[in-house]
Amino acid sequence: MDTNMEKPYAVGIDIGGTNTVFGIVDARGTVVASNSIKTGAYEKADDYVDEVCKHLLPLILENGGVEKIKGIGIGAPNANYYTGNIEFAANLPWKGIIPLASMFEERLGIPVAVTNDANAAAIGEMTYGAARGMKDFIMITLGTGVGSGIVINGQLVYGHDGFAGELGHVIMRRENGRLCGCGRKGCLEAYCSATGVARSAREFLAASTEPSLLRAIPAEEITSKDVYDAAVKGDKIAIDIFNFTGTILGEALADFISFSSPEAIVLFGGLAKSGKFIFDPIQKALDENVLAVFKGKTKLLMSELKDADAAVLGASALGWEVK
Amino acid sequence: MDTNMEKPYAVGIDIGGTNTVFGIVDARGTVVASNSIKTGAYEKADDYVDEVCKHLLPLILENGGVEKIKGIGIGAPNANYYTGNIEFAANLPWKGIIPLASMFEERLGIPVAVTNDANAAAIGEMTYGAARGMKDFIMITLGTGVGSGIVINGQLVYGHDGFAGELGHVIMRRENGRLCGCGRKGCLEAYCSATGVARSAREFLAASTEPSLLRAIPAEEITSKDVYDAAVKGDKIAIDIFNFTGTILGEALADFISFSSPEAIVLFGGLAKSGKFIFDPIQKALDENVLAVFKGKTKLLMSELKDADAAVLGASALGWEVK
Repeated sequence: MDTNMEKPYAVGIDIGGTNTVFGIVDARGTVVASNSIKTGAYEKADDYVDEVCKHLLPLILENGGVEKIKGIGIGAPNANYYTGNIEFAANLPWKGIIPLASMFEERLGIPVAVTNDANAAAIGEMTYGAARGMKDFIMITLGTGVGSGIVINGQLVYGHDGFAGELGHVIMRRENGRLCGCGRKGCLEAYCSATGVARSAREFLAASTEPSLLRAIPAEEITSKDVYDAAVKGDKIAIDIFNFTGTILGEALADFISFSSPEAIVLFGGLAKSGKFIFDPIQKALDENVLAVFKGKTKLLMSELKDADAAVLGASALGWEVK
Repeated sequence: MDTNMEKPYAVGIDIGGTNTVFGIVDARGTVVASNSIKTGAYEKADDYVDEVCKHLLPLILENGGVEKIKGIGIGAPNANYYTGNIEFAANLPWKGIIPLASMFEERLGIPVAVTNDANAAAIGEMTYGAARGMKDFIMITLGTGVGSGIVINGQLVYGHDGFAGELGHVIMRRENGRLCGCGRKGCLEAYCSATGVARSAREFLAASTEPSLLRAIPAEEITSKDVYDAAVKGDKIAIDIFNFTGTILGEALADFISFSSPEAIVLFGGLAKSGKFIFDPIQKALDENVLAVFKGKTKLLMSELKDADAAVLGASALGWEVK
């Protein structure tokens, strides 16, 4: 992290399908000011960027002005680090290619870098969190989907085109695999995302007549949070669902270790907070499936980024590195 | 490649289970002198290293002496780049941990680096072959086993422990997978190595009564070369075996692309030379299985290293980089 007293802050902007959160962060990872707007309220990308700047600029001015900001990092779906563009993001209102980095640079006069949200989380974890000091680790984000950010030799892996690290879409079940949102079958994301867990719940409930607390909820409304709440109360089907989910994720992680032999795999996102219900079956399946030469070497860790700040922190970490 | 007129050569040593081949290579990838000894003839690692040096030193002296050599690169099974050791190599006569780099350095006074054979092949391809100028590619070696060398941001991926890049051991068939030499089931190597192809031949012949040229060979003696020879003559079962093998490899490559989004995947080794019989089904399965964002972006290439020299060239390429 290249910081100095003259530019003591970075800005992080996290663009989600629903909300855009942004904040000013110091070198120790403290969010000194933040705000948010609704992403979906702006049909035109220009109007959207104007609105973010309208709310961000006062925060910057309160903290010493533009000259105190080292850089701006943006985490967004389908954001390409090399081009500074968002490209064909299905969950955002603006279609085609949006030159997001240059749009912010023009308005604020501060250098801007963009990357996808999972990569931003990985940089955040390396800068402020559980992966501090690590040169080789993999970040897995378990949210609505499954994302990943891969760090090798201390550098984020962008690949030749800027889109590397789509580990949510390795195929885990080639026979009768579930249909994934990407159009293919059997992807990790179809099982180990929050939506995958909800889907498992419906399948498990339909496949047996065993009593379960989850039967009190209309099947289509069950969420991964409901499954967690039931597991905490000792519900067998809920615990089975976590075992099923964690086993597939542990199998996947064992393969990822054969690729880059990371010092740690860091789990992030709502599902990662299901504690031992998800952690224990992941660790068990990882140990059972990993190649002998790697056994017991890669740590399985939970993210140490504070929840409310994680997205802004991750994006801001990229801001320190902008040239 | 850091070369200069004062040190115009690197030495490459390729240690295989049967033969050890070594040579002196110039900056353009020409092997100017080479020789070999039998690896298995020396019970003690010290005697073995003495013997290599005894045959290598005259070649060095004929080409200007030790001061003309930039460095020595060694490719060997289970060789660890970070430590300079060979560690528990099942196919070599010396058990436990052998400090190979320092053993050669002490005898020759030239800096030495070691890595496994697939990594050496990747560096060779980047220095002299099909991956010249590429910063992101994956080398897959299809031999007795399946090995890999991964290059990201222009650097070989060693992982936190020096053993990264075991792509032959990702699991491709989780249900009823074949037993692999590593003790697990369903590994890529159990299907897409030369021994995997021979095994497929026995399975395919046993599963049908269809006529095949391969039926003239005792089942246990069939090699992947026999399958190739039969395919060239239009033998349907032989062609089916290549389709089966190539499909599994193409599925695997599609997953590897989701990891590091390489500019190219370079195939190396005997099986890679089966031409369209293996190339076409790999490309087809890759196209059918790759995530949309990567479709059509990653080139599938054959190694451009000359066969006889490939192992020495690969190892020598590491010699240019030794510090």
